[in-house]
Amino acid sequence: MAMQTVKVNVGKGYDVIIENGILSDCGKIVKKVTGKGRAAIITDSNVSRLYLQTVLTSLKKENIESESFVFDAGEQSKNISTLSDILEFLAEKQFVRSDTVIALGGGVTGDMAGFAAAIYLRGIKFIQIPTTLLAAVDSSVGGKTAIDLSAGKNLAGAFKQPEAVICDPEVFSTLPEKEFANGMAETIKYGVLFSDELFYSFNDKTTPSSLCEMIKKCVSFKARTVENDEFDNGERKLLNLGHTIGHAIEKCSNFTVSHGYAVAAGMAMIARASESLGTAEKGTAENIEKMLIKHSLPTDFDYTAEELTNAALSDKKRSGDKITLVLPTNIGKCILKDEPIQMLGKYIELGKGK
Amino acid sequence: MAMQTVKVNVGKGYDVIIENGILSDCGKIVKKVTGKGRAAIITDSNVSRLYLQTVLTSLKKENIESESFVFDAGEQSKNISTLSDILEFLAEKQFVRSDTVIALGGGVTGDMAGFAAAIYLRGIKFIQIPTTLLAAVDSSVGGKTAIDLSAGKNLAGAFKQPEAVICDPEVFSTLPEKEFANGMAETIKYGVLFSDELFYSFNDKTTPSSLCEMIKKCVSFKARTVENDEFDNGERKLLNLGHTIGHAIEKCSNFTVSHGYAVAAGMAMIARASESLGTAEKGTAENIEKMLIKHSLPTDFDYTAEELTNAALSDKKRSGDKITLVLPTNIGKCILKDEPIQMLGKYIELGKGK
Repeated sequence: MAMQTVKVNVGKGYDVIIENGILSDCGKIVKKVTGKGRAAIITDSNVSRLYLQTVLTSLKKENIESESFVFDAGEQSKNISTLSDILEFLAEKQFVRSDTVIALGGGVTGDMAGFAAAIYLRGIKFIQIPTTLLAAVDSSVGGKTAIDLSAGKNLAGAFKQPEAVICDPEVFSTLPEKEFANGMAETIKYGVLFSDELFYSFNDKTTPSSLCEMIKKCVSFKARTVENDEFDNGERKLLNLGHTIGHAIEKCSNFTVSHGYAVAAGMAMIARASESLGTAEKGTAENIEKMLIKHSLPTDFDYTAEELTNAALSDKKRSGDKITLVLPTNIGKCILKDEPIQMLGKYIELGKGK
Repeated sequence: MAMQTVKVNVGKGYDVIIENGILSDCGKIVKKVTGKGRAAIITDSNVSRLYLQTVLTSLKKENIESESFVFDAGEQSKNISTLSDILEFLAEKQFVRSDTVIALGGGVTGDMAGFAAAIYLRGIKFIQIPTTLLAAVDSSVGGKTAIDLSAGKNLAGAFKQPEAVICDPEVFSTLPEKEFANGMAETIKYGVLFSDELFYSFNDKTTPSSLCEMIKKCVSFKARTVENDEFDNGERKLLNLGHTIGHAIEKCSNFTVSHGYAVAAGMAMIARASESLGTAEKGTAENIEKMLIKHSLPTDFDYTAEELTNAALSDKKRSGDKITLVLPTNIGKCILKDEPIQMLGKYIELGKGK
């Protein structure tokens, strides 16, 4: 299986390198980025047990000096207190601007390490090593980083592009099934957004080689979208397909429903609403539902339209009195539609429809 | 006295508006920036007593909805805990991306409000209203924001350009003499860096009109420098004249010596060192010393060369094993010189020389 590389042309540009087994050789790529500099590895208590030693060994082989910071795994760590601990760790270990922060983990780790790299000394270099499928196809590319505040998720953060993303799909084969499905929801999203060919390929059985190819395609779609709209003022909003209702589901569940599951149901709901309103071709919603079910993902949750609407309205995506919705028109194409905020309830009702 | 405006061509560009009495009319400028949006005023316990009501009244006249956040005055507030409070305040009051954060105060307020504006929702609009001469000529222009960490000052932050800077020199006339002198140190710095004409004009008595003109000139010099090097990789380092030793003095005093006083002595020391080494013309150091003394500023402190060197070496400006020093060659011109880090002690010894 050859190495797959996707070039992301944002800022000075960077490569996403996708290869089975590359984790144990990651030091070579880190060396190219950090040169004589040191590396600060940020990881969580789960991932550190599984992969930290592999990474440390590879860095050592390349004579890269490193220090590690491990925080408690879980979304509840994604706050300003852990961020503060990471910053103090970087300062205490005297990291300088020419050094590199490495995020080794899933979305929470990438978000926090990336945010710390964005603000420590007003910015030092940063490498992403995603260890979940969800992080690989979604958060590790594009440069969005954030922490949660008391009032809500991802309310403070920075745009921070990495110098490289190192993605080893072999790592995802050790993921619990539920966590793999979590990533498949965002993967299916790319099919709905950009390519019916990609979408229907998810009917085939996943092999190590097809997984690499699939990740490459998703990352390519994300890269092109981010290149056209780095700071999320237009086209990039497409990537929020299923997310407005998805976030409402996460909120209603007090964040016990994981991100991919919520986005899956959110995607199904907005597709049903879009079809009811005549924006989506007939059958679009059913095709999405079938694919989600095939990958053990939900197409609805037991919250009422009213509960979901209230939760969605307190979401940060509200800006003034309009909301931008992402509506499928058919498999492989979606549009952005600005609607008055009070219309959101209508979409959610239609989405609950069946 | 006509209004003075300096255009800063960084990012999409912004104006620094300098006018006596403009504070009571600031709402008009805020309106242009925030449109229908709301304003979040961040200020400290000293400044709020003096000027918050004036600003609120002016905003109200323009029908701008606003909320205020007041924190305890002083550098000890410039930390991640106050930053967290500001972010939670913004979230709780449901500020959105189209709203504006206003920093009303000195350097600490500008730094923290600017940093909060940079990261809240990954960036919302920001206006600076400096209330000290030091902030007016230095920190309010250029977009550097930061907080202190346990390990040192300004170790985390962001580059965040404001949408406008509103500067009312009448406000500086109420400053305690010592605080005015604090600003004069940075003002004199611009003379040493860029213009002997500006430098020698500081021999004249300050009038309300000459103060406007002086601030305009300093801001123009800073603007041109920042335009050429927004992210502080080259020419912008010139603005650090006197700061490497200045920071060491602040550190040795456990931050009881204020910034301008430390920079003044740092500037005198590096000028003496530069003259000893033949880089500066003979008489340069004496001319700087005379001007500092005229403005009641120090030209040295009672710390030994060894104490200062140790303090300086733990400073964040160290990058790898080289340090970039700013050396005057004569009044109105300075050069950047990269030196091995171990040379710093030599400069400090020569600076203590007389």
